[in-house]
Amino acid sequence: MGGHPGEKGMIRANRPIGVFDSGIGGLTVVRALRQQLPGEDIVYLGDTARVPYGTKSSETIRRYTIQAGAILKRFDPKLLVIACNTASAHGLAALQAESTCPVLGVIEPGATAAAALKGPVGIIGTLATIQSGAYENAIHRHRTDLEIHSLACPLLVSLAEEGWVDDPITDAVCRRYLNQIDPRVKTLVLGCTHYPVLLPSLRRVRPDARWIDSGAVTASAVERVLQGATGFRTERPRGTLRILLTDASSRLREVGERFLEEPLERLELVEW
Amino acid sequence: MGGHPGEKGMIRANRPIGVFDSGIGGLTVVRALRQQLPGEDIVYLGDTARVPYGTKSSETIRRYTIQAGAILKRFDPKLLVIACNTASAHGLAALQAESTCPVLGVIEPGATAAAALKGPVGIIGTLATIQSGAYENAIHRHRTDLEIHSLACPLLVSLAEEGWVDDPITDAVCRRYLNQIDPRVKTLVLGCTHYPVLLPSLRRVRPDARWIDSGAVTASAVERVLQGATGFRTERPRGTLRILLTDASSRLREVGERFLEEPLERLELVEW
Repeated sequence: MGGHPGEKGMIRANRPIGVFDSGIGGLTVVRALRQQLPGEDIVYLGDTARVPYGTKSSETIRRYTIQAGAILKRFDPKLLVIACNTASAHGLAALQAESTCPVLGVIEPGATAAAALKGPVGIIGTLATIQSGAYENAIHRHRTDLEIHSLACPLLVSLAEEGWVDDPITDAVCRRYLNQIDPRVKTLVLGCTHYPVLLPSLRRVRPDARWIDSGAVTASAVERVLQGATGFRTERPRGTLRILLTDASSRLREVGERFLEEPLERLELVEW
Repeated sequence: MGGHPGEKGMIRANRPIGVFDSGIGGLTVVRALRQQLPGEDIVYLGDTARVPYGTKSSETIRRYTIQAGAILKRFDPKLLVIACNTASAHGLAALQAESTCPVLGVIEPGATAAAALKGPVGIIGTLATIQSGAYENAIHRHRTDLEIHSLACPLLVSLAEEGWVDDPITDAVCRRYLNQIDPRVKTLVLGCTHYPVLLPSLRRVRPDARWIDSGAVTASAVERVLQGATGFRTERPRGTLRILLTDASSRLREVGERFLEEPLERLELVEW
């Protein structure tokens, strides 16, 4: 538990983890963090005013990611997580270059987990993520011999936001998509933070597949960093959670609670 | 055919109609215009780089609409159509104030058609359009006694873009949504330019309903304006179509052709 006094006098291990997403999908990553690391304080920033990032230019996404990092740094975080595939693909290196604390994205942990298994591997995600080739590139940095099947599944984000989980329509949509992926594929990466909500349907369609939930593997990657010099928070058994959004609606709260699997108690509006 | 020499020397009746949308959904409005007014030249501008507008602020949408109008005015249009519900709700008045030619949106024609019928009336659209209350406001400007049932149908845009038309999944999704609308509602407004593509499924679920396609009623509104001083183009029996986009992908072409129901031959990239 190697905590030591930080710049602002707070023991480093006791500082919060900052989590950034373009919207509220990243709350599934927060859920995984709260499950695996229940003692940690978390500050979440969702750029709900400018979601989605998938249609924006690389330069714009980089700028927004830096802006989000600047807001989260007000909370003196010990670690930052970019819980958004698009922002991880385009903004991670830039935010790392400007940060004194470790910064993790969601793509690298998912790609590392996939690269460690026997192939072939499937990647499902939004149109923007699949077209960017971000997972293929990240997997190929580990090994170039892995056969990768990628598929954009545009309807899944809306289904997750509608909350049609454990639902015959969602089963039918998942079947339609997954039937397009070679049946030899037994490892599938959830390349979108919305998708863990749909795991009941996805599992029913491919009961023999191993599913890599990038939220869960990112939480494990965070745990490994905290095991090093950064340290775990041990003040109280259950850490706090603050949710900052750049735009809010009653629907966001409802959808967010489904992703987080706990009530959204502290929801604060921030401006850039 | 009251054409007279325009500012740039071209007979006014022979100038093109400019159509603006945040993306490619407005091509269903172009399809309706090409059906009802086949002789007209059309220049379409889709802001595919910044789509969707539904999540942007009113001020931003107004600014983007003015910018789009400025690009279309390079083609010396005799009339402008804002073929986007969000841009119509927030940018129509601003673009009208800056334009010497008539400017029409898609909300007013749909609302006028609904207000002319016996109620109650249903409005389906995106979350942004339904939350804005734009159709209710427009209908209430005609009459305040009409009972209105509004419903956001977030999955329908993705279904239209996927091309899952005449499809059991789309039938099931449409049934799920439309069953939430009071069965007394016999008139339904398609409050989103993507939805006409889904009419086969929508009609199957509510076979006794009258569907108001805002593209078709907007084309009729354009026809009424042309009947006045503006005039119809009569040079050749079939007008030309130019498609300008601010960002292009192979998928846009595929989806666009489905919306337009003809090949996307001239697809040009423009920058702001």
